[in-house]
Amino acid sequence: MAHPGDVSALAGLLGSGALDAGAIRAVIGKTEGNGGLNDFTRGYFTQSLLHLLSRAAGREAEALAARIPCVLSGGTEGVLSPHYMVFAAEPAEGGGGLAIGTAFGPPVAPGDVGNDAQIARVAAATRAAMADAGIEDPAQVALVQVKSPAGGPGLLLRSVAGGAMGAALALGDVPAKAAREAALLDDFSLFSPRVSASAGVEVMQDEVIVLGTAPGWVPGLSIAVRPMTDALDLAAIQSAFRGAGLSADPDVPPGQRSRIRAILAKGEPDRSLHVRGQRHTMLGDTDLDAQRHLRAALGAVIASVAGDGRVFVSGGAAHQGPPGGGLVAVIAESA
Amino acid sequence: MAHPGDVSALAGLLGSGALDAGAIRAVIGKTEGNGGLNDFTRGYFTQSLLHLLSRAAGREAEALAARIPCVLSGGTEGVLSPHYMVFAAEPAEGGGGLAIGTAFGPPVAPGDVGNDAQIARVAAATRAAMADAGIEDPAQVALVQVKSPAGGPGLLLRSVAGGAMGAALALGDVPAKAAREAALLDDFSLFSPRVSASAGVEVMQDEVIVLGTAPGWVPGLSIAVRPMTDALDLAAIQSAFRGAGLSADPDVPPGQRSRIRAILAKGEPDRSLHVRGQRHTMLGDTDLDAQRHLRAALGAVIASVAGDGRVFVSGGAAHQGPPGGGLVAVIAESA
Amino acid sequence: MAHPGDVSALAGLLGSGALDAGAIRAVIGKTEGNGGLNDFTRGYFTQSLLHLLSRAAGREAEALAARIPCVLSGGTEGVLSPHYMVFAAEPAEGGGGLAIGTAFGPPVAPGDVGNDAQIARVAAATRAAMADAGIEDPAQVALVQVKSPAGGPGLLLRSVAGGAMGAALALGDVPAKAAREAALLDDFSLFSPRVSASAGVEVMQDEVIVLGTAPGWVPGLSIAVRPMTDALDLAAIQSAFRGAGLSADPDVPPGQRSRIRAILAKGEPDRSLHVRGQRHTMLGDTDLDAQRHLRAALGAVIASVAGDGRVFVSGGAAHQGPPGGGLVAVIAESA
Amino acid sequence: MAHPGDVSALAGLLGSGALDAGAIRAVIGKTEGNGGLNDFTRGYFTQSLLHLLSRAAGREAEALAARIPCVLSGGTEGVLSPHYMVFAAEPAEGGGGLAIGTAFGPPVAPGDVGNDAQIARVAAATRAAMADAGIEDPAQVALVQVKSPAGGPGLLLRSVAGGAMGAALALGDVPAKAAREAALLDDFSLFSPRVSASAGVEVMQDEVIVLGTAPGWVPGLSIAVRPMTDALDLAAIQSAFRGAGLSADPDVPPGQRSRIRAILAKGEPDRSLHVRGQRHTMLGDTDLDAQRHLRAALGAVIASVAGDGRVFVSGGAAHQGPPGGGLVAVIAESA
Repeated sequence: MAHPGDVSALAGLLGSGALDAGAIRAVIGKTEGNGGLNDFTRGYFTQSLLHLLSRAAGREAEALAARIPCVLSGGTEGVLSPHYMVFAAEPAEGGGGLAIGTAFGPPVAPGDVGNDAQIARVAAATRAAMADAGIEDPAQVALVQVKSPAGGPGLLLRSVAGGAMGAALALGDVPAKAAREAALLDDFSLFSPRVSASAGVEVMQDEVIVLGTAPGWVPGLSIAVRPMTDALDLAAIQSAFRGAGLSADPDVPPGQRSRIRAILAKGEPDRSLHVRGQRHTMLGDTDLDAQRHLRAALGAVIASVAGDGRVFVSGGAAHQGPPGGGLVAVIAESA
Repeated sequence: MAHPGDVSALAGLLGSGALDAGAIRAVIGKTEGNGGLNDFTRGYFTQSLLHLLSRAAGREAEALAARIPCVLSGGTEGVLSPHYMVFAAEPAEGGGGLAIGTAFGPPVAPGDVGNDAQIARVAAATRAAMADAGIEDPAQVALVQVKSPAGGPGLLLRSVAGGAMGAALALGDVPAKAAREAALLDDFSLFSPRVSASAGVEVMQDEVIVLGTAPGWVPGLSIAVRPMTDALDLAAIQSAFRGAGLSADPDVPPGQRSRIRAILAKGEPDRSLHVRGQRHTMLGDTDLDAQRHLRAALGAVIASVAGDGRVFVSGGAAHQGPPGGGLVAVIAESA
Repeated sequence: MAHPGDVSALAGLLGSGALDAGAIRAVIGKTEGNGGLNDFTRGYFTQSLLHLLSRAAGREAEALAARIPCVLSGGTEGVLSPHYMVFAAEPAEGGGGLAIGTAFGPPVAPGDVGNDAQIARVAAATRAAMADAGIEDPAQVALVQVKSPAGGPGLLLRSVAGGAMGAALALGDVPAKAAREAALLDDFSLFSPRVSASAGVEVMQDEVIVLGTAPGWVPGLSIAVRPMTDALDLAAIQSAFRGAGLSADPDVPPGQRSRIRAILAKGEPDRSLHVRGQRHTMLGDTDLDAQRHLRAALGAVIASVAGDGRVFVSGGAAHQGPPGGGLVAVIAESA
Repeated sequence: MAHPGDVSALAGLLGSGALDAGAIRAVIGKTEGNGGLNDFTRGYFTQSLLHLLSRAAGREAEALAARIPCVLSGGTEGVLSPHYMVFAAEPAEGGGGLAIGTAFGPPVAPGDVGNDAQIARVAAATRAAMADAGIEDPAQVALVQVKSPAGGPGLLLRSVAGGAMGAALALGDVPAKAAREAALLDDFSLFSPRVSASAGVEVMQDEVIVLGTAPGWVPGLSIAVRPMTDALDLAAIQSAFRGAGLSADPDVPPGQRSRIRAILAKGEPDRSLHVRGQRHTMLGDTDLDAQRHLRAALGAVIASVAGDGRVFVSGGAAHQGPPGGGLVAVIAESA
């Protein structure tokens, strides 16, 4: 991926017939913008992707955008490498492979995020995505990826929090009574350890991707998700890789690295202004956004275990994993 | 350390008599600036430190500045935590402890860095610091820390390179024929795996600190230094901690963390624009300096092993460890 | 001023006897930091200044700090030039010159800003500074400069607003009923066109400087203050220079420039996200702080009239001049 | 223009028939990126524009891109407003109106900029664009706008310089003997006061737009171009507006503002590190790119005269106007 509009690798797969455009269920990617309100690399990639798929599938870009969640996170600080992951799957007879389901919410009015309405919308979309995947029991959900509209200046982190709470509600990880607007960015004890949420100015409706286990999907891929207690939680990161069937002693050995299919993580500059008792400076830097700090740091720790900079790490982890921490998910091909 | 002018912790030690100002040999610290040309947190800290020591020792600040190297690196990106390390030691009868020696070069004319003159100056200062430590054999040197004047706009990285080459020359890690101006920032195969160099606008002469093994120093501290092949070299980092007598499985266990006395590292945004084959974006970001990217990333990987954000990590690692990599040093109290 | 710790120009004046340290009433300066929470250039300058004055006056730095307001604003974006202005004055017989008065409020507890308490504290300090200047009638006040503690993360702009409201209350420019906490950063129709406020982490109590007209001050200096309707208000800027007795057609001619003694301005990124109907991007830039944008822009417009980059321009102009605009003050020597 | 991919205003004009896609000769725009190597807002806009024109004109986007120069400059710091200017014109019988001509150079190999080859390529393209406009005498050229490939890391400013030198050579503003690679970014006494050059990663070949006077173009538009001696040259800016038939006392009065059709400027952070004898900090700021500083400052001065933030101001003015200064061009509708 040479730049945010570069979809040539996917074009190659579609052109050669190695991949059928119709099988694409979702795209998750990391582009090299600043990850904030004025990060237009996400919109640029999305436009490029939809033009490509539109030509390949012979359908209008708008129709594809309404069917394929395209979750972009900007910011490839430090050793992180711009990349995108294409989730393509067809249900299969029999069983027990990695299931994927997607859903879209209704169009969102400007500013209508970070509130009870968003929580309800995202919860409904999460349930719809579970149904789409064929997952009935929330316990079978490994990871929910949510993307919501940014809402406008000052609302971005509220929107992330609202999206997270909505999915947590649908999974039963946060009780319905507690999953309220008033708790957003306030009661950080409320969280799901398997929800990853983000928000962007280029998004007009809530988009949800559910990954988990269900009958009727081709086997061969494993997913493991682990909560991290803070941005230094090396043991949790290793555990996620091991949970997905890889070694991590301390890192994934070169011979196994090609089996890594996706690494997704959420993290957060600790609001206590300290990590393990030592003062950090992420939240008071006028020149460098706190989330850029965080992505560079957490992304590098994960990449040092993976041996690969293609890590989808996204800041703004409120209600996604323990406060000050977050979560990490690894999808790997079975040995 | 609440801010770059906060030397209250040291003031406490001096006030209580726990530390004698006269025993202070060197100070190495990490302040929360941007680490670049317009990072004045280094000068602010140095001024604050010298005022404190001046009052405590009853000597002029200028005289202290000419005797005590004060090596500051700006930039506490990500999980890094502002801190300073005070090296205080008195020679002791008998043997084999961690030795420290220091030396200053002559005043440097503006712009007189990144050239053969600087290489010669720093080599001479390195030899003087070895002598000050009582180290005769370069093989007994564990780490040389160099700080040189920044030289002016556009010269900062050249000055770092020149300082590194000078120390490498003195150690015999780079042959005299090769340690020339023309090789600076050009032939990256020339390096020492035990030299850490930096440069700053607040520095007016080359300053060198040598750490190693020599008779006549109080035992009780161990140092281990390891080269890193790239910014993801988790195994090398663990090895340095283990070399200093600590566990690292994967991280230093909480019960051992108080034995960590200092962690120093150098790293570099890989000039190939790739880390392990994947494109990074550190060197083409107009908004975020490449060294800030690097410190955030490498610092976090080291901190994740240490379990502590107080890591002195400094960018600009030309001729300090392998190209694209760097080195890491750990000083720990013996068990 | 070569760097934020450089007070050599003032040292020269004190050393030669051209200026008596005891005559110094206040210092206002612009240092080359980022102007935000982690801008330590202000503290560095203040420490350097106090050490100098302490030696010159033979008094403790702490005692001087409690008597001489030292108002620093970080950020010399664009053509702005780091500089500081020393206000030294002795009352004289007779009269009608430029009067100066100063006052300090009580120590402020962390976070105790942006509220009714701060408004009351600053109003009281403003009245005390007026009394110190010998000004009884608020109509004789030309400009009030306020500096308050930053309060902590997220509070900086609230503190600026609270300081402005307090001074506006004392001047009668905002009625007592309206000058309330609830109006801060909310009702921008409440403002004084002659109050300039700022806040900083290095400040521990409110500091106020009043400039105006009163009997008993040496004549020879004029001050003119003008509200600006927006950051493009070239006519208002020219009017301020003319009001202080200078030409401005379109700029101050070279022969008059040495008569400029001080230029102070406040401005604000327009909260409507537009300037004169066109969208600006200052308030949604993740990489570049809105106030840095604003200072670069407004500072350049003023400097283009002055023909000089030594303009004290400070962002965060809530309640200081019209919404979206601000104010500009010029002090000049009489012809 | 709500974001860099927003071409809805142009879509409206094309849809209503107010503008014929076939009449479009060139597009010059200012997008809200950082203006540097990793500014992808230019590519995003260009992609969006070409998709729109492709649909409107029923032609392939690639064919349009090879015919219509699309010169984008990133960076709308301060009061600058994102906007684009569409140059649409048909030759007419008679008349000395504003002429436009365009030309493209051959594809450029990576890194093949900032050298004699680029100078020759751009000179040839400039002559071709003059011919396209029907301008024979270089004296009839008012402004040449050049865009070249960025060339890669570290080459961007060299590419800008090479583009400027090539056009200056074609105009005879720099003699052929002097217009050499060795002079680029070195001999700043060589310049044209009517060439505006830029470079971008999204550009694959040199693109040139020539504006001037020639028979056979519809009258009604005036252009005036003025050199600026530095970033504070308010008088030169006013002169450009007056030269285009507008008042500027000090600014363009509201009733005339709708006659402004385009404002283009180039400027430069003064390499002497001073503006009018006062130190600026643009060239030593690790957190804020020098060109971002410059655009914010110079753009605001020009906007304060125009009364409008839609100013195309671009940094990197080497060989475009006097050293430390630049040039400003205004196109206005006749009264």
